[in-house]
Amino acid sequence: MARAAIGVDLGGSHVMAAVVDEAGAITGREERDVIDRSPAAVVEALVAVVRTAIDGSKHDVGAIGIGSPGNIDPSTGTIRYSPNFGWENVPLGDRVKAAFPKFDVFVGNDARCATLGEYVHGIGQGTKDFALLTLGTGIGGGFVSNGVMAIGHQMGAGEFGHHQIRPDTGFVCGCGKTGCFEAQASGTGLMRHALRLAPSFPRSALLDVPREKLGSKAIRKAAQAGDQHGLAAFAAFCDDLALGLANVIAFVNPEIIALGGGVSSAGDFLLDRVRPLVEARTTMVPRGTTRIVRATLGNDAGAVGAATAAMRGGLIAQLPLVA
Amino acid sequence: MARAAIGVDLGGSHVMAAVVDEAGAITGREERDVIDRSPAAVVEALVAVVRTAIDGSKHDVGAIGIGSPGNIDPSTGTIRYSPNFGWENVPLGDRVKAAFPKFDVFVGNDARCATLGEYVHGIGQGTKDFALLTLGTGIGGGFVSNGVMAIGHQMGAGEFGHHQIRPDTGFVCGCGKTGCFEAQASGTGLMRHALRLAPSFPRSALLDVPREKLGSKAIRKAAQAGDQHGLAAFAAFCDDLALGLANVIAFVNPEIIALGGGVSSAGDFLLDRVRPLVEARTTMVPRGTTRIVRATLGNDAGAVGAATAAMRGGLIAQLPLVA
Repeated sequence: MARAAIGVDLGGSHVMAAVVDEAGAITGREERDVIDRSPAAVVEALVAVVRTAIDGSKHDVGAIGIGSPGNIDPSTGTIRYSPNFGWENVPLGDRVKAAFPKFDVFVGNDARCATLGEYVHGIGQGTKDFALLTLGTGIGGGFVSNGVMAIGHQMGAGEFGHHQIRPDTGFVCGCGKTGCFEAQASGTGLMRHALRLAPSFPRSALLDVPREKLGSKAIRKAAQAGDQHGLAAFAAFCDDLALGLANVIAFVNPEIIALGGGVSSAGDFLLDRVRPLVEARTTMVPRGTTRIVRATLGNDAGAVGAATAAMRGGLIAQLPLVA
Repeated sequence: MARAAIGVDLGGSHVMAAVVDEAGAITGREERDVIDRSPAAVVEALVAVVRTAIDGSKHDVGAIGIGSPGNIDPSTGTIRYSPNFGWENVPLGDRVKAAFPKFDVFVGNDARCATLGEYVHGIGQGTKDFALLTLGTGIGGGFVSNGVMAIGHQMGAGEFGHHQIRPDTGFVCGCGKTGCFEAQASGTGLMRHALRLAPSFPRSALLDVPREKLGSKAIRKAAQAGDQHGLAAFAAFCDDLALGLANVIAFVNPEIIALGGGVSSAGDFLLDRVRPLVEARTTMVPRGTTRIVRATLGNDAGAVGAATAAMRGGLIAQLPLVA
C-alpha cells in the first residue's frame, strides 16, 4: 500500500481533509462548512472529516498535517492566537492527537503549509529561493531560502502581510497597525481602495453594486470592463502590491514569487500591471531576475503542504526540506 | 600549523586584511587607506595588504575571503555594481585570484559576510534565526533562517536597507526610491531627520555645528546632553528604525537582531528607546520574543565572516552553515 498522509486545510468557514500521497497528489477529500467557530465545534468538524478521509482511503495513512490560520506554538501545536477564529491558546494539536492517538499529528500555519506545498510539489520546484503570497481576505505568506523553509524563532517567518508599507497614509489593519501590506494589497485592500476612491467617481457602476457584494471580484471585473472607478482602484491596489513585492525581493531575493489566493485568479490582468511596477522598485539586484507568477496548486496548496510536512516526520522546522 | 584564512574588509575609504583562525580569532592585520577608487588602484591596495598579511602570518593560510560593498555575481566574484565605489562589473574575484593563483578566493557582500561572522563567532552563536543590521552611512544586513545563511537568487537576500518604509513621506534614497529603510534609519538618516526638524528649533545648539561636522555622532551626543533638537531628531530616527526592525521580525522572525555599525555605539541610549517601539509594532508573534542587542565583533565582523566563508570552501551559498 502506498504511503500517504492526511492534509487538513482549516479555514474560517470551511474545513477540508485530503488524502495526499508521496507525490503530492490528492487521492480523496472530505469537507464540511464551519458555522460555529468555537474551538470544540471546529475540532469536532475537523476530526469528523479526517476520520472519513482516513476510512475512505486505500493508502497507508500514517500522519495528519493541519494547516491553520494564526500563530502556532512550534513545540505543542497549540494555536496561540488566530484572528480568523477569535481564538487564543487553543491546543489544537493535542485535541487531534487525542482523537487519533496512533497517528503523528503536525500543526502549522496555513500559509507556510501552502508555501511548502508549492515548493515541493508546485511552481517552486527546482528553485532554492522561493516565496509564496496568498492574496485573499488577508495576505498569507512564506518563503524558502537557500533550499530551506523559513520558520522563524516563534513560527512567524514569512508574515509578509503584517509588514508596514504605508504607515503614514494607509488603511488601519485588523492587527491594529496602519498600512500593513495585508491592509493595502489583499482582496480586502482592493475593496478599501475602491471605497476610498468612490467620491471621485460619482457615476461609477460600482456604486450600484450592493455593499455586501462589493468584493474584490466585482471591482476587478469592473476594471476589466473598462470602468474608470474600477481601474483606478485596481491601479492603486497594484501599486501597493508592487511595493510589498519589491520589499519581499529586498528581504528574500527569491527566484520566483508565486501569487495564490482569490485575487490571483485575475491572472495576466494583474501580473501584466504588477511586474513593471515591481521592477521599478527593485534597485539592488538586476531587474527582472525574480519571476512573478501564479501559484499552481490553487486552493489545495495548504492541504498538500500540511500532508507533506506531516509525512516528513513532524514540525516543518525539524525537517530537511531541500528539494 | 593551524589553519587560517585571510579576511578582507573592503570599504569606501579603507581596506583591511586580517589573518583569521578557525576559531574566528584575528591573529594579525594589515590596513591601508583607499584614496583613488578606480578598480585598478583598489585592487592594488587590496593585493598589497593581503600579501603582507600572508607573509607575516604564522598560520597555514589557504584561502582569501573578501567582503565588498555592492551586489556580487555569485558564480564569478564580479562586483556587478557598487554605489560606494561607483563601480560596474568589476571582476574583483578574478583579479585577486590572478595575484594569488594558489589560494581559494571568495567574494561576498560585506554585510552578509559580517552576518556570517556574527552568526558563527559572535552574538548569533547558538541561535537558528538571526539577523544583523549595520547602521552606518547606509544600512547593510543579512540573516540566517532555520540555521542556514540566506543568500538569495542573485545574492540579494538581506538587503533590508532598501525595503521601503516611508514611500509617501520619507527621504529620497541614494538608490532612487523614496523612504528606504536606509534613507530613514542609517547614520545619514539621523542627520536628515535633524535637518528636517531644524526649522522648529531655531535656538538648537546643533545649528552651531559646522555642516560638515553635523554627523550622526554629533546629533546623538546633543540628544544625550538633553538638546531638544537632538532629542527630536533621535526620536524620529528611532521610530523609523523600529518600523524597519518590526518589518524584519515580520519577514524573518529572528531570535536575535544584532545592531552593528557606528550608530550602534549609542548603546543603551538607542536600545532602550527602540525596543518598546518595536514591540508596539509587533503583532503576529509574542511581543518581546526577538531580542534586540548590539553586535559583538564590531568592525571586525566582515573580515571574520569573509575568512570564515573562504575557509569553508567557497561561496557562502554552497556551504553547510548550520552552526
